[in-house]
Amino acid sequence: MSLANEKLLGKVAMLSCLDDSYVKQIEKLGWRYCVGKVGSMESNKVVAAIETGAKKEDVIKGSIYRETHALYHAIMEAIYGVTRGHVQLGTVLRTVGLRFVVVRGNPYDQAEEGDWIAVALYGTIGAPVKGLEHEAVGLGINHI
Amino acid sequence: MSLANEKLLGKVAMLSCLDDSYVKQIEKLGWRYCVGKVGSMESNKVVAAIETGAKKEDVIKGSIYRETHALYHAIMEAIYGVTRGHVQLGTVLRTVGLRFVVVRGNPYDQAEEGDWIAVALYGTIGAPVKGLEHEAVGLGINHI
Amino acid sequence: MSLANEKLLGKVAMLSCLDDSYVKQIEKLGWRYCVGKVGSMESNKVVAAIETGAKKEDVIKGSIYRETHALYHAIMEAIYGVTRGHVQLGTVLRTVGLRFVVVRGNPYDQAEEGDWIAVALYGTIGAPVKGLEHEAVGLGINHI
Amino acid sequence: MSLANEKLLGKVAMLSCLDDSYVKQIEKLGWRYCVGKVGSMESNKVVAAIETGAKKEDVIKGSIYRETHALYHAIMEAIYGVTRGHVQLGTVLRTVGLRFVVVRGNPYDQAEEGDWIAVALYGTIGAPVKGLEHEAVGLGINHI
Amino acid sequence: MSLANEKLLGKVAMLSCLDDSYVKQIEKLGWRYCVGKVGSMESNKVVAAIETGAKKEDVIKGSIYRETHALYHAIMEAIYGVTRGHVQLGTVLRTVGLRFVVVRGNPYDQAEEGDWIAVALYGTIGAPVKGLEHEAVGLGINHI
Amino acid sequence: MSLANEKLLGKVAMLSCLDDSYVKQIEKLGWRYCVGKVGSMESNKVVAAIETGAKKEDVIKGSIYRETHALYHAIMEAIYGVTRGHVQLGTVLRTVGLRFVVVRGNPYDQAEEGDWIAVALYGTIGAPVKGLEHEAVGLGINHI
Repeated sequence: MSLANEKLLGKVAMLSCLDDSYVKQIEKLGWRYCVGKVGSMESNKVVAAIETGAKKEDVIKGSIYRETHALYHAIMEAIYGVTRGHVQLGTVLRTVGLRFVVVRGNPYDQAEEGDWIAVALYGTIGAPVKGLEHEAVGLGINHI
Repeated sequence: MSLANEKLLGKVAMLSCLDDSYVKQIEKLGWRYCVGKVGSMESNKVVAAIETGAKKEDVIKGSIYRETHALYHAIMEAIYGVTRGHVQLGTVLRTVGLRFVVVRGNPYDQAEEGDWIAVALYGTIGAPVKGLEHEAVGLGINHI
Repeated sequence: MSLANEKLLGKVAMLSCLDDSYVKQIEKLGWRYCVGKVGSMESNKVVAAIETGAKKEDVIKGSIYRETHALYHAIMEAIYGVTRGHVQLGTVLRTVGLRFVVVRGNPYDQAEEGDWIAVALYGTIGAPVKGLEHEAVGLGINHI
Repeated sequence: MSLANEKLLGKVAMLSCLDDSYVKQIEKLGWRYCVGKVGSMESNKVVAAIETGAKKEDVIKGSIYRETHALYHAIMEAIYGVTRGHVQLGTVLRTVGLRFVVVRGNPYDQAEEGDWIAVALYGTIGAPVKGLEHEAVGLGINHI
Repeated sequence: MSLANEKLLGKVAMLSCLDDSYVKQIEKLGWRYCVGKVGSMESNKVVAAIETGAKKEDVIKGSIYRETHALYHAIMEAIYGVTRGHVQLGTVLRTVGLRFVVVRGNPYDQAEEGDWIAVALYGTIGAPVKGLEHEAVGLGINHI
Repeated sequence: MSLANEKLLGKVAMLSCLDDSYVKQIEKLGWRYCVGKVGSMESNKVVAAIETGAKKEDVIKGSIYRETHALYHAIMEAIYGVTRGHVQLGTVLRTVGLRFVVVRGNPYDQAEEGDWIAVALYGTIGAPVKGLEHEAVGLGINHI
C-alpha cells in the first residue's frame, strides 16, 4: 500500500491540467481520462460538466452509482481547492473559468488497491468582469 | 488588468511544486521565490515552515505586517485545497508530507497591479501510517 | 440537569423518523410533535416545509420569534447532518428526499430546564437522477 | 441502482446505534459490523476508536488503503452530524460520549454496486461537566 | 415581535465592547451584563473565560443547562465573526487579544419574547508576534 | 508595525456603522470612506451593493484588480460575522437588512504598512417575515 513513484495519479492529472503536453503521459500509463473546459457562475454547472465529460469518455460507468458517487466526491474536493472555504460561486458574486482533467488508475504498488480517480482543476476565479480574476487550482482524489 | 499568458504566477508556482525542473522558469521571470518541505500532523507547523522559508529567502519582508498578512492568507487558502473542507490535520487523525513553493511577482499586464504572492503545495495526506495516504494539492494567491 | 433515560428527546425523535411505529412513544410522553415529508433540490424549501409543519401542528407558536429562532437553528443543525460540510443542495447538483419529525419536550430531570426541540431527518441524498443516491440522517436539538 | 427496501444500510446502522435490539437485524442480513463506545474531548480519539473497532471485527481490512480511506470519510461525515458545522470538540470546549455502529453491506438491488459502509453515531455532546449536554446523531455512508 | 429601537441588545453590547463609556447604557436599561478580557492561542480558553465571566456576574445561571447552552452558542457565533471561516486559533498559528461584553435582556416590544443574550467581542487577531495583528469583531445573539 | 491607538481602523468603521455620529471621526482622520444600506435575501446583492458604494465614493479604484480583490475579501469576512458559519442567506431561507461602512486608511504607526480597508456591517438577520429577526454584526479587514 504505497504510492508508486512512476504512477502518481494526482501529479499526472494536475500536470496535464496545467500543461497539455503532459496528457500523453496518462496515455502511456494506459489510464482512462478526459479533458474539458467549463466556465460558469453556477457551481452545479461545473459539477455537471465534469460528470458529463467523465461519462462520455468512459472514465466512469454512469449506470453504476458507486462510480458516480466516487467521482462526485472527487469533484467536490477539487472545487474546495478552487473556492477555498465555501463551495459557492455566483451566490457570492464570483465566476470561474476552468480546465479539468479526470484520470482513473491505480497509483499504488498493490493491485488490490484497485482504481482511484483524480479530478484536477486549473483556471481563474474572480468577479464577473473580464480581468478581475486570479488563478486557482483544485485536486480531488477518491477510491472508485 | 488581465493576466499575462507568459507570466502566470499560479501556474508557474504549481508546476514548480510538482516538477523541480520548472523552478528555472521562475528565475527566468526574475521573481523571488522559495522551495521547501514540511511534514507534520500539526497545521500550525505547516504554516510556520512556509512563513519561515519565505522570510529567509526574502520573498516577503518579515518586518512589514502587510506582507506577513498577505502570505498568511495565501498559505491558509493553499491549505484549504490540501485539507478540503476544514483546516485540520492531527485533530482529525491525519498527517501531511508536503513540498511547497512560494513565488512573488506581478502576473498582470499592468505594472500598477503590483506584486502578488502564490503558495503552491503538493504532497500526500493520510493516516499517520506510512502508505495509508493519497496525493493532495493546494494553491493560494493574494495581492501583497 | 441530567438527561432522563425514559425521555430522551433526540432518540425518540430519531427513532420515530426512521420507523413510524415509534411515533406512539412520543404521544405516550405527552409531547407535541409533527411528522412530514419533503423532497427538493432547494435547501430553503426543506427549511420552509419543516417550519410550516411545526407551526401547523402547534409544535411552536409562529407568533413568538424566540420559538421560530429555536426551531430554525435546530433545522439548520439537522441539515448539517444530512449535507455534511456545507448546507447546499441544488447549487452543488444534488437533491434530497426526507422524512422529518419535530418533537418538543423536556428531556431533563429538572422541570426548570423547560422545553427543548428536536428535529430529526432521514431519507436519501444524491444526484438528481432516481437511484443515484444514498441514505442520510440529521438531528438538531435546541432549547426553546 | 436503487436502494432495496429490505436492506437499507444506513437505517439499520442508525437503528442499531439507537436501540441495541436492532443489531440482530444486521446479523440476519449477513453483514459484517461492529459496535463500540467512545468518550473524548479529542476528535482524533473518536476517529481512532471507530477505526480500531472496525479493523478488529474485520469490517474493513486494515492492510488495504482503499478500505481505510472509505471508512475514514464515512467517519468524518458522521462526526459532521454530531458536531454540526466544524469538526471540533475540546478546542471549542466540548466533549462527546458516543455509541458507534459500523456496518458493511450492499444496500442496492444490483450486485455490481458492491459493498458500502455506514458509520452511525449516537450519544451526547456538551460542556465538559456531567449533565451539561444534549443528544447528537451522525451517519456517514461511503462506497468501499 | 419587533426589535424596539431604544433597547437594541446587540448594538448596546457591541458599542459597550468598543467603547467603555457605553456600559452605563446597559445599566440604565436594567440589564444584567459582564465585561472582561481574554488573550489566548487556544479557542477553548476564550470560550471558558467568557462562560466564567458570565456565570460569576450572574448573567446566566450555571446550574441550568439551557442557559449554558444558549450562552455557548452565542459565544461560538461571536467567535465566527472574529475568526471568519473556521473556529481555529493556535492550530493555524494565530492568537487573539479580546475584550468581551455579555448582555442579557429582552430587545423586543413583546414581553413574551423573554430574555435574549448577546456576546460582543472586539480586539486583535494575528501572528503570535506583537504587532503582527489587525482588529476583529464578533457578535453572537441567542434566545435564553 | 503596531496599531496606533488614535487611528484604529476597525473600531472607527464599526462605531460609525453602529452610530452615525461617529462618521465625522473618519473625516477627521482624513480617510476615504463610504456609508450605505442594503437589504436582500441574495448574498451576491450584498456583495455588489458594498462594491458599488466603495467604487462610487472612490474608496477603491475599480480599474485596479488588486483593490477590488482586497475589498472583496474584506466584504466576505464581514459577511462571515453576519451569517456565522456559512455564507448563505436565501438558500437557507433568511434575509438581511444591513448598514455598511467601508473605510480605507493606515492604522499602523509605520507609513510603510500602507493602506488597509475595513468593511463594517450592522443590521438584522432573520426569516423573510418582518420582526422575525435579530441583530448581526461583521467586520472584515484587509491590506490594500
